[in-house]
Amino acid sequence: MTTQHPVRAELADGREILFFSLPGNVAHPVPDVRPLAARPKGAQSEVRRDRQTGDWVAIAALRQDRTYKPPADQCPLCPSPGGDRSEVPAADYDVVVFENRFPSLSHAGPDAPILHDGDLQAPGIGRCEVICFSSNHTASFADLSHDHARLVVDVWRERTADLLGRDGIEQVFCFENRGEDIGVTLSHPHGQIYGYPYLTPRTTSMLRQAREFAAVHGRNLFGDILAQEIADGRRVLVSGEHFTAFVPFAARWPVEVHIYPNRHVHSLVDLTEDELDSLTDVYLDVLGRFDRMYPAPLPYISALHQYRSDGIQADGYFHIELMSVRRSETKLKYLAGSESAMDAFITDVTPEQMADRLKAL
Amino acid sequence: MTTQHPVRAELADGREILFFSLPGNVAHPVPDVRPLAARPKGAQSEVRRDRQTGDWVAIAALRQDRTYKPPADQCPLCPSPGGDRSEVPAADYDVVVFENRFPSLSHAGPDAPILHDGDLQAPGIGRCEVICFSSNHTASFADLSHDHARLVVDVWRERTADLLGRDGIEQVFCFENRGEDIGVTLSHPHGQIYGYPYLTPRTTSMLRQAREFAAVHGRNLFGDILAQEIADGRRVLVSGEHFTAFVPFAARWPVEVHIYPNRHVHSLVDLTEDELDSLTDVYLDVLGRFDRMYPAPLPYISALHQYRSDGIQADGYFHIELMSVRRSETKLKYLAGSESAMDAFITDVTPEQMADRLKAL
Repeated sequence: MTTQHPVRAELADGREILFFSLPGNVAHPVPDVRPLAARPKGAQSEVRRDRQTGDWVAIAALRQDRTYKPPADQCPLCPSPGGDRSEVPAADYDVVVFENRFPSLSHAGPDAPILHDGDLQAPGIGRCEVICFSSNHTASFADLSHDHARLVVDVWRERTADLLGRDGIEQVFCFENRGEDIGVTLSHPHGQIYGYPYLTPRTTSMLRQAREFAAVHGRNLFGDILAQEIADGRRVLVSGEHFTAFVPFAARWPVEVHIYPNRHVHSLVDLTEDELDSLTDVYLDVLGRFDRMYPAPLPYISALHQYRSDGIQADGYFHIELMSVRRSETKLKYLAGSESAMDAFITDVTPEQMADRLKAL
Repeated sequence: MTTQHPVRAELADGREILFFSLPGNVAHPVPDVRPLAARPKGAQSEVRRDRQTGDWVAIAALRQDRTYKPPADQCPLCPSPGGDRSEVPAADYDVVVFENRFPSLSHAGPDAPILHDGDLQAPGIGRCEVICFSSNHTASFADLSHDHARLVVDVWRERTADLLGRDGIEQVFCFENRGEDIGVTLSHPHGQIYGYPYLTPRTTSMLRQAREFAAVHGRNLFGDILAQEIADGRRVLVSGEHFTAFVPFAARWPVEVHIYPNRHVHSLVDLTEDELDSLTDVYLDVLGRFDRMYPAPLPYISALHQYRSDGIQADGYFHIELMSVRRSETKLKYLAGSESAMDAFITDVTPEQMADRLKAL
């Protein structure tokens, strides 16, 4: 299976929308007839460097007005056959991607400015895309068929390759926030794809560790972490030919699972057809366990850690980190003083207990 | 004003409790007659190093059972004249500190083991204290009189000096989590004091930046940040002889204020009497603005960044960081994919707008 070229169209305010279809299906966009004002010609946000830590922060003041928990019949992610009621002007779709109407970062592309080491402030160049996993408003990722989930994986892959090729984007981050408990304001199954103009702080930190490890030990840190998790075995949930899913040795969240490819690759772009199929299976397996943990679906964040294959990112190792703040059927973990102010996580379940729980589901 | 020596007593399970009093008051603890099992002789938690980032994580499985939103008449932080109903066996108190009954870290002291660079796993040595700011169950820090708030500052100072002197503690962190919105399970006005056996990740990151800055520029990074904020002026809320409060240039939170001393000190321990009084005034001023922002009291985290004065911590600069997740009267900021998974913050208010709002209150 290879991703078809997407069907491209334009929304009423000039944003790009891309339709991706399962084999045998063809997308038929209709004109977006909503009376939207043309979007601004330049970035509306800015990025600033926090000199205390060296980290970049994005400041997107326009986002205060973004769509907040609309009623189901006004869902902006459902198909709009007449092109007048939602962000997706079409009678139906399998997977669709479009630029966020309230982007934190925007206008990456030809001649976009590049951030430099000494910069403290710059326009918020980048890209924020919404990816709808299904036209079914009440679906969840875990319920998708293998072929449909594989299509999402292929779309993530296509978007990663596309965005990494655009001026002004340093890192591509595909992720899903699922559940009102973590602030999701639209319940339609969807994720987001961010093209940042900088390396995110966690990525910077991980690459620094990997560089120091390689200098001392002459091998890849993440390959070593994976090998140790496999050798230990207590926290491994799924051990396949191509991918391994485990609760990490030093998990920070009440529920946390990492999915690593068994060989060192930098992003989805590097994976073979077999590996993409295997990843789809392992991912659906983990999400299925998440949804069986409690009577209500588990709120979670799924984060694809992807890297360029050269330069400062060469030590990066593609993997997915999934995490949840739910610590019991009725309780959430809040990030309070230790976590929010000092980044010092305190968990109240051992990774081994967490792995046993997930293995039993 | 100098902190009196606290009146020391012991709770039924062997934990230490310290009573601090305003001038003229004397604490009279009674025996704690609750039938508590003796607390364990060694650390019940552990710490593990996340090799991906080099950061330590504390795993405290016993905390799943901690007290969760008790009714007001069973508040464990109210005074218990008969010594049978709460954690504070006394008819009244001004400020009291005791070891947390459900500690994430414990048993620091003589001969406690020290963490080493190569360690991946160790007992959860350290100290977790609860500090009750007032015996009045419905008070808030912002409502305390100057003298009472100054007593709290003095107690933070006394605890910092005490804990920094104990084996097994590398960093002392005084903080307050206020508000159910950020997961606070006890509404009685209180804070916490953590003695970590390691430097927290944010502290490590800040000290790394400061070291690099000093190597290039030959001066202190935080002094430079403060000088730039004062020179710019747009984000300065309070500009006093001894302390300056400002919204930082690259604020990460919908409400964020930093309070810096105007000279380089490492912790509360270094401050003079005048400076401690000035800090008390500025702190109460900022908290008062917070409480006037919305009809309901603002949920916030207050974090005291303190350092040892020598070694790897010498570039540290004492300051307080206050932050809130409230982004409007009805909405909270949630830390979702970008923040939780990548530490990449996106805010939807500019620091200048935030400063104007706070200045007007």
